[in-house]
Amino acid sequence: MAAQLFDGQALAKAMRKEIDAEIAAFKEEYHITPTIAVVRAGEDPASVSYAGAIQRSFEARGLGFQMHALPEDISEADFLAQVTRLNQDSAIHGIMIQEPIPKGIRSEVITEALSPLKDIDGVHPVNAGRLAQAAPTGRPPEVFDFFVPATPAGGLEILKRYNIPIAGQHAVIVGRSRIVGKPMALLLLRENATVTLCHSRTRDLAAICRQADIICAAVGQPRLIRAEMVRPGAAVIDFGVNFVDDKMVGDVDFDGVQAVAGWITPVPGGTGPMTNIMLLRNVLEAARRQLSS
Amino acid sequence: MAAQLFDGQALAKAMRKEIDAEIAAFKEEYHITPTIAVVRAGEDPASVSYAGAIQRSFEARGLGFQMHALPEDISEADFLAQVTRLNQDSAIHGIMIQEPIPKGIRSEVITEALSPLKDIDGVHPVNAGRLAQAAPTGRPPEVFDFFVPATPAGGLEILKRYNIPIAGQHAVIVGRSRIVGKPMALLLLRENATVTLCHSRTRDLAAICRQADIICAAVGQPRLIRAEMVRPGAAVIDFGVNFVDDKMVGDVDFDGVQAVAGWITPVPGGTGPMTNIMLLRNVLEAARRQLSS
Repeated sequence: MAAQLFDGQALAKAMRKEIDAEIAAFKEEYHITPTIAVVRAGEDPASVSYAGAIQRSFEARGLGFQMHALPEDISEADFLAQVTRLNQDSAIHGIMIQEPIPKGIRSEVITEALSPLKDIDGVHPVNAGRLAQAAPTGRPPEVFDFFVPATPAGGLEILKRYNIPIAGQHAVIVGRSRIVGKPMALLLLRENATVTLCHSRTRDLAAICRQADIICAAVGQPRLIRAEMVRPGAAVIDFGVNFVDDKMVGDVDFDGVQAVAGWITPVPGGTGPMTNIMLLRNVLEAARRQLSS
Repeated sequence: MAAQLFDGQALAKAMRKEIDAEIAAFKEEYHITPTIAVVRAGEDPASVSYAGAIQRSFEARGLGFQMHALPEDISEADFLAQVTRLNQDSAIHGIMIQEPIPKGIRSEVITEALSPLKDIDGVHPVNAGRLAQAAPTGRPPEVFDFFVPATPAGGLEILKRYNIPIAGQHAVIVGRSRIVGKPMALLLLRENATVTLCHSRTRDLAAICRQADIICAAVGQPRLIRAEMVRPGAAVIDFGVNFVDDKMVGDVDFDGVQAVAGWITPVPGGTGPMTNIMLLRNVLEAARRQLSS
């Protein structure tokens, strides 16, 4: 095996210690328990399971967790009213709306109803726009504080904690979702990477990927990125979560690519545990920002 | 000369006829004159001159134009109050804040005070965020209506009107400003181009540019893009406005590159006239959207 592992599990464990200390200090100083409210309509099994994972990690850290499970046939107006109540509830610091949004409810209505200050998953256009507009890291940001979706924020954190050079490097992002691909591109651009965004319409994906110092895969296709698409020594971040024969696999063909890459995230145990940590961190940060607002 | 010209002047002339008809129909139906308010603090000569050009083009089309020239030493609160008044004034459909914003006034405070519905230059984070989040063209947009900055919108319009293929093509953007480079990247991504964003920290810019089917230069460096950086037949969009020995030149070395490229915008007479047209169109569109709001 050539590649070194980006051990998301170990990194998350180390970061939990840091965040535990931050949480303890915050609670001691302000007597406030940073609290997330998760909102869902219906009982999609993946969403139920994800909410459970969030609950466990928040409660394990002494953070607050509220689940608001709405009926699947809720009206847009009632869904909206629930979001508004949570916006106004000063005991709630972060709000996450789980997908899928039931048919008949416009997701943009719900998303834009969120208070940007409590939008700890960075889905409100104001947060997406501030990220898009922010100056490169190290310069004055030129925008108000914003939240970044937890998954790409976790990917960037892995690169930084492992001291992977980013400035001046060529990063290729495969996938252009609003929650991973595009924010990851904007985050790496802020870090002064040259960034290429690829997707289903890209011609000769292999040739473009081979130029990458950093490859980020977030496309939802099992093992799309193969060894021959990777430059020797490249850092590979796999955001993919796919199930093949009941086995969780990423968007990267791990067995093949690990022989070529310099660094690679395993799936599971790579970007996944980091997403959870970044969400914790965003809720603590939201509570901090709400002190002064 | 190998390259064909993207004749922004001729295109703008043709589009003015289209927009004249749209404006006439709108005014006849609604008895409303779509009106822009330009706000400036101080008397920066380039801003004064740009405002004059906007005034001429709006008045020539029978659109309304208001100039709000504020003192350079205005307070942030007074600047803000002026923006709020214009937001609330139903006779104003579009508001443009001119740079530079005087020192001591936070530009993000002014920008975010703008009503997104009147932000016809697409500078409010809500508009930038909706652009960043919008699905590819042809699919449901998944976001509310938004405005795109006039300059990149004009560049895209040139490509489309000249039937330059975009989907599946590789577009290289040189420059990552919030008003040109980044929105241009997001616009081309929506059109299904593979998009690379380059900037001052990019290594081997020439090699990356040579891969481009479409090059967009928006960096403010006279003649940065030279012939040897351009693939034969590429389409070159030059957003640069620089002055060298009192002569206006773009970011592209026109004399050299026109021998290699397939298509190229002249400077002046390329993207410049299109910016003005897109601004007219955005104000008309803003008036239309405000009918139902």
